[in-house]
This record gives sequence, C-alpha cells and structure tokens, in this order.
Amino acid sequence: MTRIALLAIAAAIASPAAAQTLPAGLVTPVADDVAALRDAALKDDIAWDIVEGLTTEIGPRLAGTEAEARARAWGAAKLKALGFQNVRIETYQMPVWVRGEERAEVISPFPQPLRLTALGNSGATPAAGLTAPIAYFPTFGDLARAPDGSLKGKIAFVSHAMEPTQDGSSYGAYGVARFVGPAVAAKKGAAAIVIRSIGTDRGRGPHAGVTNFPDGVAPIPAAALSVADAENLERMVKRGKPVTLKLVLTPRQTGTHESGNVIAEVPGSDPDAGIVLVGGHLDSWDLGTGAIDDASGVAITAAAAKRIMAAGQPRRTIRVVWFGAEEVGGFGGEAYAKAHGDERHAAAAESDFGADRIWRFETNLPGSATAVGDRLQAALAPLGIVRGTGIAGDGADVGPMMAKGVAAIDLNQSGLRYFDWHHTPEDTLDRVDPEQLRQNVAAWTTMLAVVANAPEEIGAVTPRK
Amino acid sequence: MTRIALLAIAAAIASPAAAQTLPAGLVTPVADDVAALRDAALKDDIAWDIVEGLTTEIGPRLAGTEAEARARAWGAAKLKALGFQNVRIETYQMPVWVRGEERAEVISPFPQPLRLTALGNSGATPAAGLTAPIAYFPTFGDLARAPDGSLKGKIAFVSHAMEPTQDGSSYGAYGVARFVGPAVAAKKGAAAIVIRSIGTDRGRGPHAGVTNFPDGVAPIPAAALSVADAENLERMVKRGKPVTLKLVLTPRQTGTHESGNVIAEVPGSDPDAGIVLVGGHLDSWDLGTGAIDDASGVAITAAAAKRIMAAGQPRRTIRVVWFGAEEVGGFGGEAYAKAHGDERHAAAAESDFGADRIWRFETNLPGSATAVGDRLQAALAPLGIVRGTGIAGDGADVGPMMAKGVAAIDLNQSGLRYFDWHHTPEDTLDRVDPEQLRQNVAAWTTMLAVVANAPEEIGAVTPRK
Repeated sequence: MTRIALLAIAAAIASPAAAQTLPAGLVTPVADDVAALRDAALKDDIAWDIVEGLTTEIGPRLAGTEAEARARAWGAAKLKALGFQNVRIETYQMPVWVRGEERAEVISPFPQPLRLTALGNSGATPAAGLTAPIAYFPTFGDLARAPDGSLKGKIAFVSHAMEPTQDGSSYGAYGVARFVGPAVAAKKGAAAIVIRSIGTDRGRGPHAGVTNFPDGVAPIPAAALSVADAENLERMVKRGKPVTLKLVLTPRQTGTHESGNVIAEVPGSDPDAGIVLVGGHLDSWDLGTGAIDDASGVAITAAAAKRIMAAGQPRRTIRVVWFGAEEVGGFGGEAYAKAHGDERHAAAAESDFGADRIWRFETNLPGSATAVGDRLQAALAPLGIVRGTGIAGDGADVGPMMAKGVAAIDLNQSGLRYFDWHHTPEDTLDRVDPEQLRQNVAAWTTMLAVVANAPEEIGAVTPRK
Repeated sequence: MTRIALLAIAAAIASPAAAQTLPAGLVTPVADDVAALRDAALKDDIAWDIVEGLTTEIGPRLAGTEAEARARAWGAAKLKALGFQNVRIETYQMPVWVRGEERAEVISPFPQPLRLTALGNSGATPAAGLTAPIAYFPTFGDLARAPDGSLKGKIAFVSHAMEPTQDGSSYGAYGVARFVGPAVAAKKGAAAIVIRSIGTDRGRGPHAGVTNFPDGVAPIPAAALSVADAENLERMVKRGKPVTLKLVLTPRQTGTHESGNVIAEVPGSDPDAGIVLVGGHLDSWDLGTGAIDDASGVAITAAAAKRIMAAGQPRRTIRVVWFGAEEVGGFGGEAYAKAHGDERHAAAAESDFGADRIWRFETNLPGSATAVGDRLQAALAPLGIVRGTGIAGDGADVGPMMAKGVAAIDLNQSGLRYFDWHHTPEDTLDRVDPEQLRQNVAAWTTMLAVVANAPEEIGAVTPRK
C-alpha cells in the first residue's frame, strides 16, 4: 500500500463517516465456502507431490529435448490421475540450442580455473578455445558507452551490483547485462563476452539464461561466470595488470524440434462466462532440476484447480496449462495463443516465480468486476497478502493472451531468495519450503474460488503496457 | 563447561571461602600488554590480506601440482614482506593423485544427470564408463554388515545423516563413510561406490576428500555425490524399483612429485625455552579456492605471529609453518617432524577449521605450566571463548610433533557452517566473514602473547590418545 493510501485510510478512520470511505476490500465479508477452501489448502500435499515427482522422476527438462517430452508424458499422466478433464498435449515446433563443453581459465596474471555456463543462443569458440585479454565494464552502461570497434579482439567482462528485491524488480534492472549485453558487445567487435551471473547469491553455480542476437549480428561466445568467480576476476582486474582469459564454449543450434503444452480442465457450468486460464511452465534450464523454476508453478496452479474441482463444479471452466519452452523464448505461450486466442477467456494468471510466500496481489479487471478485486483482497488478507497498487499483467506464457485484453491477476511470490538459485545447478527440491508452498496453494485456491465463481461479467481490459 | 563444573562454581560462590575455591582461570588477572595486543588485533587486516591474496592470485592448489609450487613461492614472498626471519621452503617428495573426467547419470528408472566428484585415491572406471545397479545402504553400518561377496557387480550407495556440530564431531562420526567406506565396499566385491557427500549443506557442490585402500585391496571407483543429488537418488530408491547408474571417473596416480613446507620465524630471546610452533596448511582441494580450508589458517597464524613480532622480541621463538600436502595425507606434517623432530618445541597449535568464531580453547600442558592455562582462560574470555574440559591435540600437521610429547593448545572455531562448504567448489573467499576472521586473529595473538612469553618451563606431556 502506498503512503498516500495509508494516509487516506487514517483520515477515513478519523472521520465520522469512516465506514463509507474505507477501501471496500478492507470491509468486504469473506464467503464461508471461500474461507474453508483457503484454510483447507494450508494443509495441501498435492503441490509437493508434483514438485517432488517432477524433480525426482524427470529432473532437468530443457525445451525441445527428449527430457521435456518425458516431462509432458509425466504431466499428462499426473493430471489425468488427479481427475482433470480434457487432458491433452498440444505440440508445436521450435528451434533448439544445446550446451556443449564449457570451461574457462585465467591465463595471466593469476592462472586458475573459473566456473561459467554458456548463455542460451551463445555462439561457440573454436574447439581448442579462444584466448584474449578482457575489457572490464563495471556496469552494462559502461559497456553500452564503449566506442564502436573498441572491443576488437577482446573478451568483454560485464559486472553489476544486483541485490535481492521482494518484487523481483532487480532482475529487470540488472538482467539487461544478459538480455542484450552480448548483442551490444558483438556490435562493438568483441570476440566474446562473460558477464557476472544475474543472481543474488555468492556461490559457484553460474546462472544460465537466454540472450538474443538481432538479425544481422553474428552470435559471439557469451557466458555467465558464477558470482564468486566474477568477484574473483574483478579482484584480479583491480590489481591493475592486464587479465587474459581462455574460453572453451561449444554450444550449437540443432535445428527445429518438437515441444508442447500439456492442458487439463475443470469444466465449468457456464460456458459463456469465459475460461480462467492458469498455469506455469514445464520446461526448465538444464543445470538444476527446475524445482523453483517452475515445477513449483505447475504444481501450485494444478493443486489449486484440483481443490476447486473437488469442492464442486465451478461456474467458469478452469484451464490449467503446463507450458513448454518458456525459458528459451516463450514458444509454448505463443503456440497457446495461436491455437486458443479466439476462445473466450475471462482471466489469466501465471505462477513462475518460485514457491516462497505470496506477499502481494494485483489485478487488471474491468469495471464490471471491481467487486471481484475487493473480495480477493478480503479473502487473501488472512494469508498475509496485501493488495498492490499496480496493474497486473505478469507472465511470459499468459502474456500473449493478456495482450489480447484478457483480464489479469498476479499473485506475487517473494523474490528475496529466488535469484540466489534461479537458472543455476542449485535449483533443486531442497530450495522449496513445504510450508511456503502450501501458502501459495492456499492463495491460488482462494483466487480461483473467487474468480471462477464470480457472478459478475468479466470482459476485456486494456492490457498493461 | 560441564554441568558438574557449573555446580562446583555455584557451590563455591555460596560458601564463605568463595575466593579460594573458584577456578583460578576465572579470577586470574590479564596483563595489560596482553589485553592491548588482543584488542588491537580485533582491527587486524593482515589475515584478510593473506586470504584474499592467496585465493585471488593462486586459487586452487592441489598438493604436488605446479599450483601448489606457485603457492609456496607466493607464501615465502609474503612472509618475507611481513618481516619474518629465516623464511625458507623445505621440500619433500610425495605420490600425487589427480582427478580426471567425472560424470554420472541415472540410466533407469528416472534418467537424469547427477553431480559427483571422485574421492582422492579413487580407482578409475573404463573410459567409456561403468554401468551397474546400485545397492543402497542408509548408513555406513549397513554397508559394513553386508555379507562378503554380496556387492559383486554393484555400485554401493552409502548415505548418512550428518548434521552440523559446533565442535565438528559429526565429521568423524559420519566421515567414516568416506574414510573407509570405499575399502569396505571393495572388500565385499563392489564394482564402485558412491557416497552422500560428507557435508551439512543441501547444495549441488560435491565434497571431495581422500579415502584409503589398504595394501592388497585394489582401489575401486569411489565418488561423493552432492547432498542434493544423494537425496534425489534416495528418493528414487524409495520408489522401490531397481536403480541403475552409469559412472565415468578417470582419475589416476601420477607418481612421485615435489611438495613442500614454507617456514618463517620470529626469533625468541631465549633459545632454550623451546619453539612455539603454529600454522595451517597451504595446499587445498582442487574444486574451490581453499579460502576456509585453509588459507584462513595460514593467514590467522601468520597475522598473530606478525603482531607479536611488531610488539617486541618474545621469549620463545615463534615458528610459523604453512604446511604442504595436508589434504592428501599429511605429507607436510610428516616431513616437518622428520626434519625438526629433535629440536626443542615448547608447544604446538594449528588452525585448520575455517575462520568462524573461536568459541572454546583446550590445552595439554605440563603441570609446571598450569598457570599458563589459567592466564589463557582469563585473557580469552572477553572474546567469548570458554575453556573446555577435554585434552588438546588437534591438527593433522602438528600431530606428529604432538605425538612426540609436545604440549598442545587448541583454539576451536565453530563448525556450524564449516561442513556446508568443506572440500566443495563453494570454498571461496565469500565464505570468510571478515569480522569473525579478526576474532580469530585476536584469539591467536592472545595465545601467542601468553605462551611465547610465559616465564614457566613448558616441557613434555603425555599426548592425547
């Protein structure tokens, strides 16, 4: 809540007409059935069962690989076993990049190995490696301001100072070093680029992730050093002597392969009321087992939908989608929108930020559904969840549907630990706290109970920019 | 302090003759010069400079490799620059085992890669790998009780339940799975063995470390899975289906190579009073940069000795030894005892347990030096350090001297975090807390100020068993 909203409440309480001027969400009653579903979900075991199963029985599942195909089969079987209707796999084709050998070492002045991982879409070094001096940039801005041609024959090394933020906003602010740093370095003539991992840990596990080279810019070798290795390299740079690195990175593009979305439904009683679309992504990066990113999201949304299904038929159809190929470019979300964009959707929501406690929710609902937002505020408050003042619209996979004007609901997990392990080998089951996972299921169950059964019309909205 | 000792104090305080019956260390005054040295050391920067330098400018330094040789040259230069006397390198020859390729994957029922590292002295699989079913043992005891011959054609998988202990005692209790588990499995006919890392973390970094095969037992491939991978494998085992692993481990013995100890001195005024021997080990495992194990120990002991030197000549010579080849079998400590065993040593103390806060000290002093122990108790108390009731004698490197009857002093760091990172890729500078490192330097400075200047005779003791 903003300071201004807080002052408004304080003023309202002090006035004789307090009851009328308080925000409606603070005084809206919570329906007994919603409260009962919410509280029962705090004992949920369904989500843990899915996260544990997917990480143990499948493990890493890079988009477009046979591991992702096994994950789809596993997911369809699991969703059927849970009793969902219309369970199916919808496939599509996509380009697939795969990791090769990856090694780095300081050649001089202080020879020692460094730990890194190639960024998705990275180019390759010669098989025997590439040896070159580094050009150090403390921030992305420093790289962006380097003169054209000044990096010829050099390995750009870009650092940054990412710190944890509850809303995850530091990912966007510092992630630019990964998202576009390699393209910028390539345009300036760099032979390769290494970045400090986009992460908030101090460990040895490098953070993977895609980067993109626009048409006409030939990909250069691009990799993320672990944070500990990047800090070590920075200390070397600060000794003042030239630093030479050797990189061996042999990833490659393997052409077009099959990926797919796994879809399951809780059919609603009123087909005209529109679908409530929820889900997360089934693919993961290849270094960890994808527990927080995003076995948790598929698990939380399926568990919540299952709990609504068990309580009786909802008004609206709830469609659970376990999207494919999110990490490498959102191919699953695009394929879904292409296949289902003409169906009437009432609202969309995605869980793709781990499983730590949900601390905030935001909405983008039409005026006809203002009361839905107020009921959400009241029903979520006992879980420690505040109403934010922003406009909802998170989610790479449901983004293409939101762009078409589908109403949006965001349930925001805390990001304070998320980037310690995001895209690293450390994204494993151990990082999921069962109690916080249950709070997530309770919040999603509450949201679905309110939204899927809302008697109000939920029509199109203006999407968040 | 034991409960009995506590009751004794309580009883003493209640009695009219309280002053006479309180433990002497509680009421012994602290000399002003000792207190001043102790308190000044809480602002020490020397130790950090050494840890930062060794991890940045050398990095990993496996015993017997050229990296360890560079570390010796670096160490000798650093100790000379600090003003120590008689700085020299004393070399010796030792057998050197080096890591090769190391990969593992579950073949069935749930194909996915696992992270592991070969144990020192491990045998090798064929270059193409070894594929076999696993035989699961929840504890070392379960392995030890398996019938002879029952492991033929199998990969033994030994788990355990190590938890952190402040005194580090869980390392001995659970470490047996690494120390002798491979030999036990080999004797029972196992094709290979993987153990859950001897560690208290839940991460993906496997914990290296030596194992030993007695004469007549052919080494088998032996590796430690990361804790997260071991837990994943245990979950697979608990599904009830047979689990088949493929291991590729190609380490090898490379013959005899040179290693060495780096020695430096603060000459004392009384050559007959005996040497005070302090130090840590310069070599490290190869996966991390050896910050807590044991750049910290060489740094703490050298910084403390330097502070005593700067305060004026001590009575006893302080000899600082940065031992080589501790990790792989204590070759440096043995070489030292062989070369210097006949010189008179008054006391020995080693720092090889990271750099977290020292919480306890213990001694093994002769009766003539009882008052030295009491003065230590009084002088260390303001640093939050208690006097333990055990007999001192820690330290693989000074162990051979203690075995000859040299008096011992142990300054015990807290082990509550140590085994999260011990022997893993995560043993990097980030794990050293500068404030806790300073508390270590203060404790060691205090110890040296008391012991090196003690007017009492410090002669031989009965070594701890």
